[in-house]
Amino acid sequence: MTVSELFENIRKKRSFLCVGLDSDIALIPDCLKDMEDPVFEFNRNIIEYTHSYTIAYKPNIAFYECRGASGWISLEKTVAYIRSNYPDIFIIADAKRGDIGNTSNMYAQAFFKYMDFDAVTIAPYMGEDSISPFLAFPNKYVILLALTSNKGANDFQLFENISGERLFERVIKQSLTWAGNDRLMYVVGATKAEMFLDIRKLIPEHFLLVPGVGAQGGSLQEVAKKGMNNSCGLLVNSSRAIIFADSSQNFAIVAETKAKEIQQEMGELLREHKLI
Amino acid sequence: MTVSELFENIRKKRSFLCVGLDSDIALIPDCLKDMEDPVFEFNRNIIEYTHSYTIAYKPNIAFYECRGASGWISLEKTVAYIRSNYPDIFIIADAKRGDIGNTSNMYAQAFFKYMDFDAVTIAPYMGEDSISPFLAFPNKYVILLALTSNKGANDFQLFENISGERLFERVIKQSLTWAGNDRLMYVVGATKAEMFLDIRKLIPEHFLLVPGVGAQGGSLQEVAKKGMNNSCGLLVNSSRAIIFADSSQNFAIVAETKAKEIQQEMGELLREHKLI
Repeated sequence: MTVSELFENIRKKRSFLCVGLDSDIALIPDCLKDMEDPVFEFNRNIIEYTHSYTIAYKPNIAFYECRGASGWISLEKTVAYIRSNYPDIFIIADAKRGDIGNTSNMYAQAFFKYMDFDAVTIAPYMGEDSISPFLAFPNKYVILLALTSNKGANDFQLFENISGERLFERVIKQSLTWAGNDRLMYVVGATKAEMFLDIRKLIPEHFLLVPGVGAQGGSLQEVAKKGMNNSCGLLVNSSRAIIFADSSQNFAIVAETKAKEIQQEMGELLREHKLI
Repeated sequence: MTVSELFENIRKKRSFLCVGLDSDIALIPDCLKDMEDPVFEFNRNIIEYTHSYTIAYKPNIAFYECRGASGWISLEKTVAYIRSNYPDIFIIADAKRGDIGNTSNMYAQAFFKYMDFDAVTIAPYMGEDSISPFLAFPNKYVILLALTSNKGANDFQLFENISGERLFERVIKQSLTWAGNDRLMYVVGATKAEMFLDIRKLIPEHFLLVPGVGAQGGSLQEVAKKGMNNSCGLLVNSSRAIIFADSSQNFAIVAETKAKEIQQEMGELLREHKLI
């Protein structure tokens, strides 16, 4: 998917919502637990009821990997299900991978060829050759961790050099020499809304994947005010607040309500910014 | 496994060799390709022929993940095979994971509970709460990326603050406030041998996992000279130079020869340091 197609989908659906499929098997509603693949059934239901309000789905790989091969089967089925039923959806592997070149290439094969994800999140610590294998795939994206939403983000991401440049800024600047916004996006946590203006100076055009709205306490209004650009430039993620809003047999309907609420708020923000 | 048990094994086998099971299916010898699970058969043969010279095995997860669920089955079988046949072997998941707390906990479950790895490599970018879930497991280890062996290591790991402290040094220092050497080890590339003395000032007692000997050009002699401590403190990894030394049906015997060569060199280095 190109960046302009992504923006077109955002305009069409009046939404920049990414739903995090952090489908922890321990939290799956009881009514699904006797099924052959409860996690896939859960995802399928969530997708059926939320896709109209959703631009992207983002399975966090940890919630699948913790179940070994059977978790990977749930993941593969989920990606294939989205791809064949809703080809306009942008699918993000929240994997936070990164390794030496020949190994990163194997991860790129896993997420871009073996499975048909559109994007994968990557940790930048190992530098360019750990990231470049992912950049070789046309219309696929590296979403580089820049400034994350968690408390530990302060440990190293704000580490500052003699010129006052912080590590996350160095990561962004350096990565701009590797590829353009047709290959790169960045993770910036909603809990860091005060940093969005600084970040937009460095990358006015790029899409940002923004976790941390909802359960982690970030504000959608603030994020839009400080981070939105002329092609929206935001994919705001919500996971638990949508998918685990209800644990009864109505879970999917409640998830729909939650997704729709966010989508309506997003629609207004897009209108305020004259993007629709 | 405790650190002193690990050192005992090193003394007993006169080796600090870690064999990297980077079992790329494209490089598996033809004679195995018609088997039901060629990667597992390859690993089983490599392990049978090299375990006497080997302290640790380190599957790099990318080489399994790129084959999806079937790759995970090969991985699970490999770990179970080592665990049940050679309980003294230290098994490292070279996964380079790291995510927000509740998600890192899922990864910890994957590697320490679902599979019975002894250690997992972690990227530090997201800070303490991305690492602490792994530290909760007794006799299991986080091997934190400090200074990696690849070219891209120079991009961010050497980023320096106003006091001349580099990012990898900050990572090491900060992590020492989280746990001791009964939970933490560090990745330091053999290609950075000149840095070992500085690193040993910060962490004289900890084990270092050292990739980059062999195919990547690092020197075992240099690493031992500058990095060995009173309980050895080194796990030196070799992957391709052992496991893919030969692609005929003699691959396992050739791997044994290569492993034995390295083990003999290691035995001499341990003797020189009066550890055996």
